[in-house]
Amino acid sequence: MRPDEGRARLAALGFAADDVETLFAHFDDAERRGKLGHGHARIEWLETQAPDPTARPEKTVSTPGFDAWESRGTLGYLVLARICADLVAREPDPVRVVAADAFPTGHLGYWVRRLADAGLVAALTATSPARLPHPAGGRPVVGTNPLAVGLPDPAGRPIVVDASMGAVTYGDVIRGAARPEELVPFGGPQAHKAFALALGLEGLVQSFVGDRYGIVLVAAKPQADGAAARLRERAAGLRLPGDS
Amino acid sequence: MRPDEGRARLAALGFAADDVETLFAHFDDAERRGKLGHGHARIEWLETQAPDPTARPEKTVSTPGFDAWESRGTLGYLVLARICADLVAREPDPVRVVAADAFPTGHLGYWVRRLADAGLVAALTATSPARLPHPAGGRPVVGTNPLAVGLPDPAGRPIVVDASMGAVTYGDVIRGAARPEELVPFGGPQAHKAFALALGLEGLVQSFVGDRYGIVLVAAKPQADGAAARLRERAAGLRLPGDS
Repeated sequence: MRPDEGRARLAALGFAADDVETLFAHFDDAERRGKLGHGHARIEWLETQAPDPTARPEKTVSTPGFDAWESRGTLGYLVLARICADLVAREPDPVRVVAADAFPTGHLGYWVRRLADAGLVAALTATSPARLPHPAGGRPVVGTNPLAVGLPDPAGRPIVVDASMGAVTYGDVIRGAARPEELVPFGGPQAHKAFALALGLEGLVQSFVGDRYGIVLVAAKPQADGAAARLRERAAGLRLPGDS
Repeated sequence: MRPDEGRARLAALGFAADDVETLFAHFDDAERRGKLGHGHARIEWLETQAPDPTARPEKTVSTPGFDAWESRGTLGYLVLARICADLVAREPDPVRVVAADAFPTGHLGYWVRRLADAGLVAALTATSPARLPHPAGGRPVVGTNPLAVGLPDPAGRPIVVDASMGAVTYGDVIRGAARPEELVPFGGPQAHKAFALALGLEGLVQSFVGDRYGIVLVAAKPQADGAAARLRERAAGLRLPGDS
């Protein structure tokens, strides 16, 4: 999809110019990174969802160490964009936890990379509809619940981790690249570990936002320098998560 | 090992009575849960380490949303015990992040269970010597870096997740139950996910404590009730992490 077409279709949904840019930038980044389930195809998907383009998230709790946001029906991407902008504008001193109901939130690496580029270390998880069954079988219990971590680097080579707990993505299933029965916790004989992680992250988010889809984000000014560089040195040149 | 023998051997290392209880309770819990690498065998290991039984951790930063501790050479178990006791005595309102240099910290499920029993939801990670290589090979880059999450439950059935990113434990290798080459990120063909998670958690901890082993803990008063019960209902009776 050409950028002008993507932007025009988002504008046709009623989104203001700045929201169009925010959304297109996210989808385009996903597309370029090969995360096609979060890429341009999401524009077509949004056209089937009739999102409210006038909704605005509201910060309902604001303390030095904790913020809570309510989406008020705002698309999750735009909620996270607002949260990240707020963290950059009002930097944690040294750390702030942020919780919000927010869905969908796209690929989480995008958001922690944005924070890393602003010098903040961040860990972010997000829940989604239940997709992953217990390793023993049965109906889906938890979302794919990725955990993303962004490690800033003064030299401009942040490390950006973004790992979902699913063996395949829901997007892969939707577009026929994976079979529904492949959407299980990753790990094969050790799938109980990925299931446990997804379950713990699901409960963590629910402990803040109740029975809704949402995010929990921990963002901090690094209290010690050099984490990303040190890990790169240990990895001795091997490709690390988030490297292009 | 009989409890009186375990306690006597810890006391012989010079630990005060309350620290002996703290240490033995941790090792005994691990033993009973079958986590033998963190169990009674650790008492024998401690005897080879000459830990300083008089060291005391110090809280060097204390704000409503963030505490930093320095171990000052205190055994990691005792650092975490002190941190948990402090969180229970001075509850987060609603959330507090705690960072500390601390090693070794045993099985992390023990600590988040303790917080869950006090009504707090908590996520805890801890780093350790590099044990896991990059999935492409090479020398170890990151610790097994478990992530533990405790979800309180008013009905007394907390969910306690504690998943390390290793396919086997270092303890398994030491006692000959696993080969050294099996100590890799879990997940087989998807080991890049567990490696990424271990790397992200390692960098998160290092961003707080620098080039040392340590912990990052997020603890909160639940802002919404019922997470654990809801997840149990979804799992329809299947065994969940931390269930005995």
